[in-house]
Amino acid sequence: MQNYKFTISYDGTKYSGWQSQCNTENTIQGKLENVLTRMTASKVEVIGAGRTDAGVHALEMTANAHFVTQMNTAQILEYINNYLPCDICIKDVTIVSPRFHSRYNATGKTYRYTCYTGSTKPIFDRNFVYALGKCPDINKMRDATEYLLGTHDFKCFCGNAKFNKSSIRTIDLITIENKDDRVVFTYHGDGFLQNMVRIITGTLLEVGLGMRSPESVKQTIESKKRSEAGFTAPASGLCLIKVDYS
Amino acid sequence: MQNYKFTISYDGTKYSGWQSQCNTENTIQGKLENVLTRMTASKVEVIGAGRTDAGVHALEMTANAHFVTQMNTAQILEYINNYLPCDICIKDVTIVSPRFHSRYNATGKTYRYTCYTGSTKPIFDRNFVYALGKCPDINKMRDATEYLLGTHDFKCFCGNAKFNKSSIRTIDLITIENKDDRVVFTYHGDGFLQNMVRIITGTLLEVGLGMRSPESVKQTIESKKRSEAGFTAPASGLCLIKVDYS
Repeated sequence: MQNYKFTISYDGTKYSGWQSQCNTENTIQGKLENVLTRMTASKVEVIGAGRTDAGVHALEMTANAHFVTQMNTAQILEYINNYLPCDICIKDVTIVSPRFHSRYNATGKTYRYTCYTGSTKPIFDRNFVYALGKCPDINKMRDATEYLLGTHDFKCFCGNAKFNKSSIRTIDLITIENKDDRVVFTYHGDGFLQNMVRIITGTLLEVGLGMRSPESVKQTIESKKRSEAGFTAPASGLCLIKVDYS
Repeated sequence: MQNYKFTISYDGTKYSGWQSQCNTENTIQGKLENVLTRMTASKVEVIGAGRTDAGVHALEMTANAHFVTQMNTAQILEYINNYLPCDICIKDVTIVSPRFHSRYNATGKTYRYTCYTGSTKPIFDRNFVYALGKCPDINKMRDATEYLLGTHDFKCFCGNAKFNKSSIRTIDLITIENKDDRVVFTYHGDGFLQNMVRIITGTLLEVGLGMRSPESVKQTIESKKRSEAGFTAPASGLCLIKVDYS
């Protein structure tokens, strides 16, 4: 039995997320498991590097799975892509060490959040942006990021009220770029709590729209209360860009 | 009664085109007429600058319509966009001369055709490209364009066998650019016959894939026979970029 590592792109618009607690029917992981189970004629479990929420996209999600097949990796890639729906694609398959675990071995993740600031509706990438309809103040939002960078207890940005493990994480990069009628947030860190990128983005947008000051973000973090943070920015604007392994 | 000029963006994926001979139900023009008729409480006819085929997109299609309303152009814009589906958007509304006709007054059009050349499936823009799966020879295709530029009888590139008006047109610009895993064709001319951009693109792709020589395009044009030209490239890759008025 070999351990295979997959790099996966998907348009998450119509899915219940990478993985669902109760129902695997409409998840990316479920679709991939179905194809692998068909391919190998035995039940295959796919381990993702993390969970993306319903409607969130991925440019390069990573996953791994142990199974037996006579096919080489190029044949596996072709087989899976033939059977996956048009909004999910395997970009790469490699054989990795039996002990490789896509979640436990992940050392960092990059996420991108895209806001559309135009006054009319976005058409061609409407499922991949949050249509904000106005332009937030980029400099104020950049000022606020200095309180987010570094190692903190990010409990206030956790969307799961029942989460009882450590909520300490390190964010080492936040960039905010304004291009044409898009504002693009890029985040890199060692890991992110449930909804964390979306709640941080919502909080930064509230800063950019003048609803809170850049400095208030410091108190928000110290409060450790979800109620002190901003709104959860919509799933459509979020894309997992890359998962790092050392 | 005023004459209004509209600039319209649409994702044509699920429509039967800008206009349909028999059925306006599932056309862009039909959707726009429905909203204007509702807005003005009287039947409004919309005149498009041309017809785009089923599945073809537009960044800036132009249309005009005569009607009476108390609203100003900003209010019209907001009203229409509220009622149009999420894949059609009015980008601009202006009052024009009563004699302005979006089709008769058009002096030129720009079209863009996008091929995806990557070996795996395109995900995020899958409805806006033709997934060719390999890279054609750009230089050979560029060599072929010299026979297309200028004023010619383009009958061989007309998809409508019953078309009996003049098929003489002028193309003054064709560029072919290779960026990452996309090949982008840009065409500008005084007008294009039905399917003309798609059949020219199909013919150029056959040149780029070594199925015909660049020089053969000269004979193809001279033959005036549709059967001598290449295949009709799929609608998904085509987008009307802009309509010119003098």
